[in-house]
Amino acid sequence: MLATSYTLSATTELGFTEAADRVREELKTEGFGVLCEIDVQATLKAKLGVESEPYVILGACNPPLAHQALETEPELGVLLPCNVVVYTRGGATHISAIDAERMLSIVGNDDLVPLATDVRNKLARVVERAAKA
Amino acid sequence: MLATSYTLSATTELGFTEAADRVREELKTEGFGVLCEIDVQATLKAKLGVESEPYVILGACNPPLAHQALETEPELGVLLPCNVVVYTRGGATHISAIDAERMLSIVGNDDLVPLATDVRNKLARVVERAAKA
Repeated sequence: MLATSYTLSATTELGFTEAADRVREELKTEGFGVLCEIDVQATLKAKLGVESEPYVILGACNPPLAHQALETEPELGVLLPCNVVVYTRGGATHISAIDAERMLSIVGNDDLVPLATDVRNKLARVVERAAKA
Repeated sequence: MLATSYTLSATTELGFTEAADRVREELKTEGFGVLCEIDVQATLKAKLGVESEPYVILGACNPPLAHQALETEPELGVLLPCNVVVYTRGGATHISAIDAERMLSIVGNDDLVPLATDVRNKLARVVERAAKA
């Protein structure tokens, strides 16, 4: 697994559809529901007539952690849910999760730090297990 | 309008439902579709049995800008769509949009800067106009 400045990422030998299914399963295992799902490929085709590779955004929410976070920081909904994306590029399938610690660092609220670390660790496990062929 | 460390916010004399409708209209005016909508109050009630005040997350996407951003930065979907939230707290209705410049600063890709500024300006206008009673 690779940590970029804002994501936790892995490439996988799985195909796009299987990888996305795996991510959904692993999110469930870590207590996340998928509250919204955006088919980026279909959206770009419908709105702009642009052909692009498969790309899905899975908006994941762990309700107890989200509740705690919103109690601490009411405006935090602008940064929720936490996304995991699955996409293909140049023949390879990629899985990337938002790095919650990095993302929540812009808020500047120290009370969020333990929550952010918890979410980061959970999403790291999701990416790692989902990417295993 | 108030800029926090990560949002552009305003309180409004409008009620929750009218404020949310206004945000949807103003997003449309600025070229944003709402790709996902999360009823936080209903989700917390359904998943945790918790009573809370009205709160909605509107996931807004401007397709040409999103397309350009994803061409520049393939993993950027973890930070999309750009959210505007509407919620009530202590009897007041609040509207907050993500500060796209601040959010995209964590990516560290200079090519995104003009796009981020454009989105920030558009969402600032959405918040300002939607909040006007």
